[in-house]
Amino acid sequence: MDRQFDAELNVLNENLLHMARLAEESVALAVRSLKERNETLAQDVFKREGTINLLEIDIDELCMRLLALRQPVASDLRFITSAMKIGSDLERVGDLAVNIAEVSVELLKQPPLKPLIDIPRMASLAEGMIKDALNAFVNRDEKLARAVCERDDEVDSLNDQVFRELLTYMMEDPETINRAVDLILVGRHLERIADHATNIGEDVIYMVKGKTIKHHIEEKQCENKP
Amino acid sequence: MDRQFDAELNVLNENLLHMARLAEESVALAVRSLKERNETLAQDVFKREGTINLLEIDIDELCMRLLALRQPVASDLRFITSAMKIGSDLERVGDLAVNIAEVSVELLKQPPLKPLIDIPRMASLAEGMIKDALNAFVNRDEKLARAVCERDDEVDSLNDQVFRELLTYMMEDPETINRAVDLILVGRHLERIADHATNIGEDVIYMVKGKTIKHHIEEKQCENKP
Repeated sequence: MDRQFDAELNVLNENLLHMARLAEESVALAVRSLKERNETLAQDVFKREGTINLLEIDIDELCMRLLALRQPVASDLRFITSAMKIGSDLERVGDLAVNIAEVSVELLKQPPLKPLIDIPRMASLAEGMIKDALNAFVNRDEKLARAVCERDDEVDSLNDQVFRELLTYMMEDPETINRAVDLILVGRHLERIADHATNIGEDVIYMVKGKTIKHHIEEKQCENKP
Repeated sequence: MDRQFDAELNVLNENLLHMARLAEESVALAVRSLKERNETLAQDVFKREGTINLLEIDIDELCMRLLALRQPVASDLRFITSAMKIGSDLERVGDLAVNIAEVSVELLKQPPLKPLIDIPRMASLAEGMIKDALNAFVNRDEKLARAVCERDDEVDSLNDQVFRELLTYMMEDPETINRAVDLILVGRHLERIADHATNIGEDVIYMVKGKTIKHHIEEKQCENKP
């Protein structure tokens, strides 16, 4: 393999890792801002968004250049198309962190509803999933990627728990409705962040194996195809 | 240009249009199921999901094959990478329609909260955005794609209106909280469907112009880059 091409693939790797780190940090800062009622942390999230967006564009442009000039095949081709998809997932993670930070700023205008416990737990699960999904990508580690996908259910069930608990607050005291709905939305945002990590895990498996596990396709193909 | 390649690009076009039609119909059925309190329509949405998922995989595989075997450059390359992204947006639209249909099934177990007016309006706006975004893709119509992106704000402001109205229901009568929160989530799902249509519009503009308008990059690049 040509050294120049190798170097370009390395740049792509580095950019994705950098983007993933920023996205993870944004999620952590947004949830800390919410838990600690600290507006400065929310502002940090807003500042990072621009950089994350630019990284997505850089990654996309690099991928397009590599596809056009290097005309890669087989595993290099899968690596590059996966990188484009992962970039778009990470960009959405950044957006969701911004949504959480916006809720945090909004909630600062009102008294605290309750100490937050499950939401920070969901956030650290979701951050861990992103970190591992990217490690799986860089090391082409299919096993780790599968483990990431399996952790999605844990986040979903924590989110159900958050949702049910907040419903009881609202039922008992309509004064809490506004704040409780905001926290329900935060739970949904974190659930979606975990979904994006799962998408990345699926992309890594596809990249390594050359076949998709999306939508449990192995079973479903039999059921649905004519 | 080679005729065989042309024929393959046509298959790609057809698959995307088929997928978009199914996704649009799923959104329409899900919201009709909600409005008309009809469980059969929700079941139709669940049935379509498998087909939409398989179409995404077919589109992805076709794109990978075209990239590997045809080694396209310039506008063909942009067409193929845009097709992959659009496939993934449409798949998520299908998922969101399923989420709405799930809420509809849940709400059938309870008495109706209110006649739905703004939610069906949001849905038909969002469906129109998907339809136009795909027409813009097929006809490489940059102007139409830009018009799609501009309509996103309309859906967002309808969603704010839905949200505020449902809050007042909850405040007045805590009995309504469960159902109102469900409808708030439907509003969010529709908002996200419109976001996916906007993503597709942005991809079309990129495909036609060869430059990105994502994140209003023309202005932002000056602000953020070192």
